[in-house]
Amino acid sequence: MFSRFLNRLTAYTPGEQPKDKKYIKLNTNENPYPPCPKIMKKVPAASEFRLYPDPECTSLKEALADTFRVPPSCIFTGNGSDEVLSFAFGAFFDSNNGDLLFPEHTYSFYPVYCRFYNLTFRKIAMNDDFSIDLETMAASEKDTGIIFPNPNAPTGIAVSRDQIAALLEKRRKDRIVIIDEAYIDFGGESAVELTSRFENLLITGTFSKSRSLAGLRLGYAIGDPKLISALETVKNSFNSYTIGRFTQECGIEALRDVRYFDKCRRAVIGTREKTAEALRRRGWDVLPSAANFLFAAHPSLSGEDVYRRLRENGILVRFFNQPGIDNRVRISIGTPEEMDTFIKTIDRW
Amino acid sequence: MFSRFLNRLTAYTPGEQPKDKKYIKLNTNENPYPPCPKIMKKVPAASEFRLYPDPECTSLKEALADTFRVPPSCIFTGNGSDEVLSFAFGAFFDSNNGDLLFPEHTYSFYPVYCRFYNLTFRKIAMNDDFSIDLETMAASEKDTGIIFPNPNAPTGIAVSRDQIAALLEKRRKDRIVIIDEAYIDFGGESAVELTSRFENLLITGTFSKSRSLAGLRLGYAIGDPKLISALETVKNSFNSYTIGRFTQECGIEALRDVRYFDKCRRAVIGTREKTAEALRRRGWDVLPSAANFLFAAHPSLSGEDVYRRLRENGILVRFFNQPGIDNRVRISIGTPEEMDTFIKTIDRW
Repeated sequence: MFSRFLNRLTAYTPGEQPKDKKYIKLNTNENPYPPCPKIMKKVPAASEFRLYPDPECTSLKEALADTFRVPPSCIFTGNGSDEVLSFAFGAFFDSNNGDLLFPEHTYSFYPVYCRFYNLTFRKIAMNDDFSIDLETMAASEKDTGIIFPNPNAPTGIAVSRDQIAALLEKRRKDRIVIIDEAYIDFGGESAVELTSRFENLLITGTFSKSRSLAGLRLGYAIGDPKLISALETVKNSFNSYTIGRFTQECGIEALRDVRYFDKCRRAVIGTREKTAEALRRRGWDVLPSAANFLFAAHPSLSGEDVYRRLRENGILVRFFNQPGIDNRVRISIGTPEEMDTFIKTIDRW
Repeated sequence: MFSRFLNRLTAYTPGEQPKDKKYIKLNTNENPYPPCPKIMKKVPAASEFRLYPDPECTSLKEALADTFRVPPSCIFTGNGSDEVLSFAFGAFFDSNNGDLLFPEHTYSFYPVYCRFYNLTFRKIAMNDDFSIDLETMAASEKDTGIIFPNPNAPTGIAVSRDQIAALLEKRRKDRIVIIDEAYIDFGGESAVELTSRFENLLITGTFSKSRSLAGLRLGYAIGDPKLISALETVKNSFNSYTIGRFTQECGIEALRDVRYFDKCRRAVIGTREKTAEALRRRGWDVLPSAANFLFAAHPSLSGEDVYRRLRENGILVRFFNQPGIDNRVRISIGTPEEMDTFIKTIDRW
């Protein structure tokens, strides 16, 4: 279940951070004076920026626990979900047990993490409809674990909670499955509730997409307390204070405002469906997306050509120069006005 | 000069982040809508939190380059100097070349990083006056590098720039020396100007101490562009966006307000000298400090007793349970009022 790398670590113990304010804190070499006046003007809480943040992110974890209806001991937080994934690769995967399995077309950071931790990996070819081949993954006899995003990126295609449960039923209990739910709030079925049933399931998530906080860097993981504790060990062997005070506060606010969250994600879903329909009417091949982007192929132009022409017209989309998907571009869903401009632009070609 | 670990990495390439705003950005799956109203009320810049930060921290690096009078290509930035150090241990040290050398009493995160990257280390005993034994370090025949804070922690004792230059003169050019200048602004002599002369010298620094931003997490490194480029490779193999927008902005403000910075550090230095004098008058042994803390021994009580008695009186200091320093506590310098309370408290014993 855990890696040799994890076994070698001994976490750093930072100076005591008392939860109440009754102490005179002369223990962690903080500055007794607030930050400079211009920072103080930015936000009232700036007077506390002189003090280290809570390294355990206690209040933020409680807010996440409320949102996802799990105990706080099942929550890990990180400096963006990229950092959470990075710690997870270190904690759970070990090349001694075999390759890490992930889909052929998926988040391109996975092989990068593998090199960081010296892991070998095996890419599982997509099904013909670009969905993830869960059967081949389930049937694997020797591997160190599985990771994939749900919905997958850059395809946008989601798998159901039942499919994930079926995969886990067939898997060894000492091999971790990580489901990266960065895009789940735009139409996927979260597998968080399965974490109480499968102690080898870790779900990761981010505040960068559905909660509009890419600029602040905040991510999390949900899973069995044994997995969370392993992530804490890796984190505390690397950096004790990964999330600043302001980011922790904003994360809590973003979780509390459920109505605004729902309004925004519904708006994105609505715009996505309209954009997909508009592209299909123009002969594009658009994969069925449960995310905040579309992965689409122009009827005749290559993905690179589409990318270049859009760029010349002031619109950035993402092109992946890889066999099998190089006829496509990944188009993030913007405001209705931005998507109108996008459609008008391709109509001018 | 570089580690085998570094050679194995292939950095991730994040989606394009255009410097100007003329593009419609549909390339990095950001949310088209701003964060929730409560976050928007916190700070005007919150409307941009929906967008990823500049992963290169260009403006922040320019501000650091101005402050330290080096080219921006000599600057690396990280999520606190702990993260910068973590990347540096990975990039530059390799157990194949020998042990990493650091002082017997120093920042206790160094051995933790060593376990993270599977490095062996050798602690160099202190001189009798608790200063760092630079002669033994300079004379080492086989090692992978050297790291120490200047001023050292928890002693507070500084070495001069000339001593550092003399050390570097005697060292192999393909072995890195890292000077951790977390506390330099409270009375030490920075070695930043030596980085143009010695391409194997890396200086690290933090906004947590002299710039009162521990709560936001911001650190940096200064050195030859070859070293900086190696740090970027490690970072981009781990997490592309390590520093959020708000933190980058606050970092720039903190660098620009030189007068406030000088006022605060002078105040801390003044309070430190008064506190040291008050302790010495009471028979304490206080090491000469160039940092924002004192490392001091009560005339009769053990360090642990002092720590416990202070804690009972609502004052937190740090005690290190290690032979040779367990008669001491590390006392951070607070406001004059806090230090008066501290002195009054020990006078009541």
